[in-house]
Amino acid sequence: MRIGVLGAGQLGRMLALAGYPLAKTFVFYDMSGNPSAGLGEVIIDRDGNYLDDFLSRVDRVTYEFEHLPVEVAERLAKEKPVHPCPRALQVCQNREREKTLFGELGIPTPQWKIADSAESLKSAAEALGCPVVAKSNTEGYDGKGQAVLKSPEEAQEAWAAIGHPRLIVEKFVQFKREVSIIAVRAEDGDVAFYPMAENTHHEGILRYSIAPAPGLRKDIQEEAERYIRALLNEMDYVGVLTLELFETEDGLVANEMAPRVHNSGHWTIEGAMTSQFENHIRAVSGHPLGNVEARGLSCMVNIIGEHGEIDRILELPYAHVHLYNKGERPGRKLGHVNILADSYEELVWRVRNCAQFLPGSPEFRSSLTTKG
Amino acid sequence: MRIGVLGAGQLGRMLALAGYPLAKTFVFYDMSGNPSAGLGEVIIDRDGNYLDDFLSRVDRVTYEFEHLPVEVAERLAKEKPVHPCPRALQVCQNREREKTLFGELGIPTPQWKIADSAESLKSAAEALGCPVVAKSNTEGYDGKGQAVLKSPEEAQEAWAAIGHPRLIVEKFVQFKREVSIIAVRAEDGDVAFYPMAENTHHEGILRYSIAPAPGLRKDIQEEAERYIRALLNEMDYVGVLTLELFETEDGLVANEMAPRVHNSGHWTIEGAMTSQFENHIRAVSGHPLGNVEARGLSCMVNIIGEHGEIDRILELPYAHVHLYNKGERPGRKLGHVNILADSYEELVWRVRNCAQFLPGSPEFRSSLTTKG
Repeated sequence: MRIGVLGAGQLGRMLALAGYPLAKTFVFYDMSGNPSAGLGEVIIDRDGNYLDDFLSRVDRVTYEFEHLPVEVAERLAKEKPVHPCPRALQVCQNREREKTLFGELGIPTPQWKIADSAESLKSAAEALGCPVVAKSNTEGYDGKGQAVLKSPEEAQEAWAAIGHPRLIVEKFVQFKREVSIIAVRAEDGDVAFYPMAENTHHEGILRYSIAPAPGLRKDIQEEAERYIRALLNEMDYVGVLTLELFETEDGLVANEMAPRVHNSGHWTIEGAMTSQFENHIRAVSGHPLGNVEARGLSCMVNIIGEHGEIDRILELPYAHVHLYNKGERPGRKLGHVNILADSYEELVWRVRNCAQFLPGSPEFRSSLTTKG
Repeated sequence: MRIGVLGAGQLGRMLALAGYPLAKTFVFYDMSGNPSAGLGEVIIDRDGNYLDDFLSRVDRVTYEFEHLPVEVAERLAKEKPVHPCPRALQVCQNREREKTLFGELGIPTPQWKIADSAESLKSAAEALGCPVVAKSNTEGYDGKGQAVLKSPEEAQEAWAAIGHPRLIVEKFVQFKREVSIIAVRAEDGDVAFYPMAENTHHEGILRYSIAPAPGLRKDIQEEAERYIRALLNEMDYVGVLTLELFETEDGLVANEMAPRVHNSGHWTIEGAMTSQFENHIRAVSGHPLGNVEARGLSCMVNIIGEHGEIDRILELPYAHVHLYNKGERPGRKLGHVNILADSYEELVWRVRNCAQFLPGSPEFRSSLTTKG
């Protein structure tokens, strides 16, 4: 079976690496002019002239990023199965639509308001009570197009800094930690849930994901499963879906979802019986889902900006290196390291030992390293 | 780093799948006209006209099969590092040379003699005592070019059936089981040994490999490590080397070696901390070696001739499917399934459960299923 992937970055690369052993082949469709998958066929098509050519070379279509024109996905879906469905793109590209869907399905979110001017941003901040987070309603990711307002007086400055005509303004959530759940839904409606991960961000970029999340309570995992199952079923979704959440004193609050394999699921390559990448390919191809159980404890450490001393990391007997073969650039995701351990204590020690070889890695902080 | 691989079959494919995450890229050089790697660039060159082109596209060279002209490897080695060394090819292509080296290094072998006629085959069978195994001295693999003689009178027929001008005749070894050890040696001489596997053949083709081998005694593992270390150091070898052995009442007896990743090491993909494929790429690229420890217990089940009910196998929560994307043909290796378990009892049950979906799979037999 030939799988067409919209986008040609590291996620597509890892989908392909997981898909070849299932006898899939890959054609990437790149609209950026800068593909990095490094595998399979790549069609570079900035102007959308070769979509038919792409279609003729594939049996099924999926995507590795959600910032692609919905019309493209819809046009493709008329000819070949496109998984996940274009509707998932529509929802994920628009935070207002996403939050509205969350609300309809009973998934808690931070209180939010829409702002379409500096004045309405100020009013929203006043109504919600600062601090608030203002985010461009569309096109934002990895912390871009966002600002935190500590008081309504910062509205003018924040509005100018974000530079977007429509913002969503969210009341700041007092959370214990950031977590995510990754689920996969098959064509026949079967659903499987990975154990949740605890995520640590730094400068808006994910740095560490620990899975299963330390001290994860069964009722919290089940709450997350209920939410993501509702989303999967509502959208008649096929493939991997990620839901980012805040864990608070009062339970989970949804932040956002991603209709794809996700950085907070990279630990599954060695840390779960079946990786998120393999499960996405299984689902998209119409195969049964694979076992999502964890194999021991994992922490994913992102390699950001520069590669550091990779050969020192390769010497660590508990580290698995995954490079994306990309050039160094500040803030760029160049790869990740999966650290395995049998206890969380050992995991902390090992992660710190690894991180020392990655310059610019922030100090490892997690619920394991802070008293709470 | 660009790795050139001589040969473009499933072993090259799995080397590439392990090498991409280490930021390697792959160029395959195929002399068969029938490449199946399905990844990377492939140069098809039956007449040896494009060796320079191949060389210009790679930084280092390795190979996935030992039946390639030594002159080709030697010519390449003048320009770029070739690992393992061409001498390993020379030894492995000639059973007499291989057995002689084993003898020089104190590695026990079956008693053997050379035969270059039906008459000398008969004399050899008489001198060694039947049963004996006669094998073409060169070019044989996967049980091809072999015959068992139950009495010297069968010499004429066996000579004709094998149809090779020079045979090696080996006294039949009374063995408890067939085993193999896989080791890897780095450029700096560092060596690591995987736990031995127990192998079951059927019609000359490997069917099952269990690792770590059940009931493996520490002294037997160490004996095998001593033998393979001697080979690695003698040849100043870089990369993965496999040594197939018989386990007898009196210890180990070497059968043959393969200067490459090996079918009896496919279990390492999920069953070891670092796969044989990754370790070969690490060694060939000059990186430190990865951890060779087992992760639980594994059994590799080969998919031979036809694919069977792959979707049923994909449903098994303990099975990992690895397909080579090749067409069905009797006796052809099409893929393998790695079965994981925490106990050997569970492993036997799971392997049998999996094998029922693979038509033509021989009944699972191993030291675990026979009384001894």
